[in-house]
Amino acid sequence: MDYSEKSIELHQQKRGKIEIKSKVELKTKDDLSLAYTPGVAAVSSAIGFDKEMSWKLTNRANQVAIVCDGTAILGLGDLGPEAAMPVMEGKAIIFKEFAGVDAFPLCIKTTDTEEIINFCKLIEPSFGGINLEDISAPRCFTILERLEKELSIPVFHDDQDGTAIVVLAALINACRVTGKDIKKLKIIINGAGAGGIGITRLLISQGVADIILVDSKGAIYDNRSDLNDFKVQIAKQTNKSKITGGLKEAIVKCDVFIGVSKGDLLKQEMIKTMAINPIIFAMANPIPEIMPDQAFLAGASIIGTGRSDFPNQINNALVFPGLFRGLLNQRIRHITTQIKVKAATSLAYTITPTKEKILPSVTDKNVAKAIESGIRS
Amino acid sequence: MDYSEKSIELHQQKRGKIEIKSKVELKTKDDLSLAYTPGVAAVSSAIGFDKEMSWKLTNRANQVAIVCDGTAILGLGDLGPEAAMPVMEGKAIIFKEFAGVDAFPLCIKTTDTEEIINFCKLIEPSFGGINLEDISAPRCFTILERLEKELSIPVFHDDQDGTAIVVLAALINACRVTGKDIKKLKIIINGAGAGGIGITRLLISQGVADIILVDSKGAIYDNRSDLNDFKVQIAKQTNKSKITGGLKEAIVKCDVFIGVSKGDLLKQEMIKTMAINPIIFAMANPIPEIMPDQAFLAGASIIGTGRSDFPNQINNALVFPGLFRGLLNQRIRHITTQIKVKAATSLAYTITPTKEKILPSVTDKNVAKAIESGIRS
Repeated sequence: MDYSEKSIELHQQKRGKIEIKSKVELKTKDDLSLAYTPGVAAVSSAIGFDKEMSWKLTNRANQVAIVCDGTAILGLGDLGPEAAMPVMEGKAIIFKEFAGVDAFPLCIKTTDTEEIINFCKLIEPSFGGINLEDISAPRCFTILERLEKELSIPVFHDDQDGTAIVVLAALINACRVTGKDIKKLKIIINGAGAGGIGITRLLISQGVADIILVDSKGAIYDNRSDLNDFKVQIAKQTNKSKITGGLKEAIVKCDVFIGVSKGDLLKQEMIKTMAINPIIFAMANPIPEIMPDQAFLAGASIIGTGRSDFPNQINNALVFPGLFRGLLNQRIRHITTQIKVKAATSLAYTITPTKEKILPSVTDKNVAKAIESGIRS
Repeated sequence: MDYSEKSIELHQQKRGKIEIKSKVELKTKDDLSLAYTPGVAAVSSAIGFDKEMSWKLTNRANQVAIVCDGTAILGLGDLGPEAAMPVMEGKAIIFKEFAGVDAFPLCIKTTDTEEIINFCKLIEPSFGGINLEDISAPRCFTILERLEKELSIPVFHDDQDGTAIVVLAALINACRVTGKDIKKLKIIINGAGAGGIGITRLLISQGVADIILVDSKGAIYDNRSDLNDFKVQIAKQTNKSKITGGLKEAIVKCDVFIGVSKGDLLKQEMIKTMAINPIIFAMANPIPEIMPDQAFLAGASIIGTGRSDFPNQINNALVFPGLFRGLLNQRIRHITTQIKVKAATSLAYTITPTKEKILPSVTDKNVAKAIESGIRS
């Protein structure tokens, strides 16, 4: 199926994918007097007297802002805020369909770190949470860190947190299938942007034996001269044997390859140098780092991609609806590592995994419920 | 009916009034592949290539931001952004019910003029128009003026523009009923905030003979020493006889009283000093400047208020849905005086007015259509 053409057709025909609906009747003068003036004055006064009441008397408690600057749209890069809108509308309807969350896309015309931070602070009174999306690294790290400190509603960056959680879930299940011990794994992560750094941080928290992060210049090691602050920090906690060189050198003897970079750069010969029964998550979109059939021929034990037309789709859409459902239901203010691990574990344990199915389908309605209740427990 | 208690009950039960809905199916993997990845990549690319396409491929062309800082909520004053939310959700559902416009409330945590201007500039890529709401004077004048210059989507301040349009419509019909000539009227406007200044500006454009604007210090006249920039400007165009003193002095011989101030300050004795068959628009909420029965006893010919429980409700909700429907349909970039006059005229001419019905009911579904087509013609 040619999704591109059909998708453009669908968007053109429907003029986008979201709409605003009323939860109350609005037919008579009395309806208007209750939903609007004069009745609403009492509701506003009640909130003016006690701001906490905004969580009970408005839609805020179920409302999430999807904030995006359009600098890192899917694998397409910096196409500007207007171009980010179709993706964000897509996320909004996934939020609603799978978890009943009302998410609204705000694609904004700035790429300035401080302006984005300030924007999120300005909208806090209207929302129960903020989902940052497709904001390029390294600005996204600063923005998330600062907002986590400065806001009292949860802030989630899907490219960091969502990717990390879904990858951890996939890894948990790949280990269940192969009998590997997650703490003993040597993992190579190709791509050191939002996804790569986010995954690394979460895997470190799980006591993974060794992780080697590779960026466009090669393996990241302590004291490499060209690292930004975030990579400097991560270099101290990874690459224990201080391997230098590129992907080819760094992948030797690794148990797991995680690709969050570009298509077609993992070669069969490289897989052959990995440890026995290697696990390959080739998540670049739309072209994975290696095609599944090639990876299998080279000896891969399990292979996952970001795509819906191959088995083992590793997609953030499995995470964000249920996670926010849980955050909102419990009015959680900060997303801790513990919460992320709980989300990943409950996502993994929604199924009994096999090599061909390490994660549930993105259309599985039980997933969001499982994550919501996983966070609660 | 006690609207206050019932309204709080309704809001508590429904947890606010708006929700986000999907315009597309999202049941199967194919649905997801079209509405989200991978299909959506082609849609984003198309917009990245030509930003104009955001008007065709996203909901932007039907989407309005309701931006409010919570400083002038109804007649309640500065209760903060959280407290503004119920009013803005109310507007959002009125937008949808009467004109099919998707409006989303953004109540923001700042009262700084430059920050509010910048906020509106940041969100431009996501919306087809901006409805400013309940932002106190005089900041609201600067904000609107600047945004009209600096944005290429229409910006409307309901408290200025919406109030002015509905008052002009009411006045047109009051003249039709009484046989008065709008150009020969002497009008007193009590209250020189957003509403008072907005009304004055629009009425001046219609060649009204004389207008006297009264603020809390009394009549505004050229060279009064304590005026802000906006009042200085308006003073040069009003109060031709340079009347000083308060409401009592200024109202003598006026044909029309327009109150956008506080309840209960127009006295029967004052009405008795007005010209013959005076028209009274006592629009303070929830308590009008004078109660209708008292005004009639004092000789008023026509009386309108802001309230739904008296005849002749003069309410902005008659204007903004149809006006934005027209702006969006035609992709109008700036709201000119001509557009405002067309909106007022078409609103007025939806009915054959009588003394007890100078405006159609706010629940009349024909109004929005009439305004939309009035702007088009």
